[in-house]
Amino acid sequence: MAKITILGAGAMGSGICTPLINAGWEVRLWGTWLDDHLLDACEAGKPHPRTNVPLAKGVKLYRSADLNKALDGSDVVVMSVASGGVPKVTEMALEGISKAKALWLTSKGFCPDENGKIQLLPEAIRTIAKQKGVTIPPIVAIAGPVKANECAEGKPTATIFGCKDLDVSRKYAREARTEVYCIEATDDETGVEICAPMKNVYAIALGIADGLEEGTGFPHHNLKAATFNQAVKEMSLLGQALGAKPETAYGLAGVGDLEVTGLSGRNKVYGVRIGRGETAKDALAEMERLEQTVEGVPAAGLATTFVEQSAPQIKDQLPLLRAVHEILAGSSLSVVKILSEAVLPKMP
Amino acid sequence: MAKITILGAGAMGSGICTPLINAGWEVRLWGTWLDDHLLDACEAGKPHPRTNVPLAKGVKLYRSADLNKALDGSDVVVMSVASGGVPKVTEMALEGISKAKALWLTSKGFCPDENGKIQLLPEAIRTIAKQKGVTIPPIVAIAGPVKANECAEGKPTATIFGCKDLDVSRKYAREARTEVYCIEATDDETGVEICAPMKNVYAIALGIADGLEEGTGFPHHNLKAATFNQAVKEMSLLGQALGAKPETAYGLAGVGDLEVTGLSGRNKVYGVRIGRGETAKDALAEMERLEQTVEGVPAAGLATTFVEQSAPQIKDQLPLLRAVHEILAGSSLSVVKILSEAVLPKMP
Repeated sequence: MAKITILGAGAMGSGICTPLINAGWEVRLWGTWLDDHLLDACEAGKPHPRTNVPLAKGVKLYRSADLNKALDGSDVVVMSVASGGVPKVTEMALEGISKAKALWLTSKGFCPDENGKIQLLPEAIRTIAKQKGVTIPPIVAIAGPVKANECAEGKPTATIFGCKDLDVSRKYAREARTEVYCIEATDDETGVEICAPMKNVYAIALGIADGLEEGTGFPHHNLKAATFNQAVKEMSLLGQALGAKPETAYGLAGVGDLEVTGLSGRNKVYGVRIGRGETAKDALAEMERLEQTVEGVPAAGLATTFVEQSAPQIKDQLPLLRAVHEILAGSSLSVVKILSEAVLPKMP
Repeated sequence: MAKITILGAGAMGSGICTPLINAGWEVRLWGTWLDDHLLDACEAGKPHPRTNVPLAKGVKLYRSADLNKALDGSDVVVMSVASGGVPKVTEMALEGISKAKALWLTSKGFCPDENGKIQLLPEAIRTIAKQKGVTIPPIVAIAGPVKANECAEGKPTATIFGCKDLDVSRKYAREARTEVYCIEATDDETGVEICAPMKNVYAIALGIADGLEEGTGFPHHNLKAATFNQAVKEMSLLGQALGAKPETAYGLAGVGDLEVTGLSGRNKVYGVRIGRGETAKDALAEMERLEQTVEGVPAAGLATTFVEQSAPQIKDQLPLLRAVHEILAGSSLSVVKILSEAVLPKMP
């Protein structure tokens, strides 16, 4: 039985245990120093506090001090911590990662290095390994429309594994597959990695369009659909500028993940608040008071800088990214006007 | 001032009057023999019964008997009747159409000829004209995420004009554009025409996924997103099989229109009923009792036949179309199972 160690016992780390156990893996779940209360709940047989679903039976739990034990002899390591924690956990787990046959990655985001250069997470991990002189196995970027709680519950779920070596993504897409957790394989790591944090930014825009009904008394379905369309286009364009395949954004990683992220979740809820008339600042303060982290907010800033650094030639082709950035910065223009200018077709 | 005559005074025919008036056209709206009550309401200054929005000021109304007067000297004719009425109205208006510089088409659907051969509407119109020995001007297929009521209200709206002659679609995309009604131009008439009726079929599937929350007590967001993804893929594949560009389905005509159709509307509502546990038959009877025509139901049957006739080589690549067809035919399998098998990735 192949052994897999998941680093990070949050929503996605714990959620992915269900298909892995059902697919016959020996699953070890390691909690960071921030995850003790999550493991406490799981050990007490209670639902996981982040998914509200009990952890799959048979998962072995490891506390933060037991990282080496958790990694010992594992065939696959899965990085599932919040994006900000990826560099630190990568360093801590580097030896175990180097001995594994693959490093899977469900963490998503932009990762600034000490010089302010923003990297996608696989590149950041490779850079750290290189600096330490350690060789790491192929990285499999995991994305697609996966709400962790539904994954944990065994609800039907489609996901995508992206590895530069297609044989590797195919192998694991077969080996982690269950009847309800079904995996597409691609060699487009970059395409998959670009879509994941960008969709959090664009989900804010979708939420704004949703909120306009409450704010103005009228639904703005046409504007929401045009916003969705523009978001997909921008994910595809940005991916292509970085060497990704255009179609990745048109599939599960882009269209699919944007659809699910726009249905619920904190980015969308934050957007709804703005759409109904709260200022971006007040809405964020309220989300923070409720202890609801809005990933799309820092992602919007990081994405903007990332584009300036890595794809400046297409900066003007991403008006929706700019629009979200402007709205979050507290623009005095109406959000309808800002969104409309960003997403409605230009004069042909 | 250019003259435009809209044939059909329903939701879309009346809705599109707003941008056309605002763009400076002389607009004539002709009602069919079924539209008298709609024109009555407009003439009385009441909201249009289908959009709940008053007709744009300055539109000239014509009753069904005054077709020739309505068409006299018009630069553009717009076909906006229900798809079943397109052949008859085409024949009636053929002389006026032949004298115009373009025929725009907001009607959408599959059109069976007397031998049961199913055509897309532009082809059906061209066939009728040819049979009558009449030359007609270029056809401009109009689609995209446009709720007619929002268009009528002047809410921000993105749409797409598709004409085989790109100069023609560009010309009208510029001339009908307003600040809030913005038009993309393409030469992919087929791509635009395929997406429009197919999205009604797929919107039923999205509704089913939505209804599962009520039916099973659990949201099925992951399944809904995978369904959305598969629907877009199938629209693109079917379009390509018929000579369309793959990207048309990934833009306003496909992704955009599916998004807006999945947000509300009768196809979605019908799907929700099935998702929450009604049989397809009972749900349809209830919709009929409420006088809510569900366009996606006949479209699912016509689309299936259309594929068999015109693109049999990709029949097996459209599992979601087949799934909707099976569900509507009253399959005894659970809808979750049928949808899952259709939309989750196959073993790679």
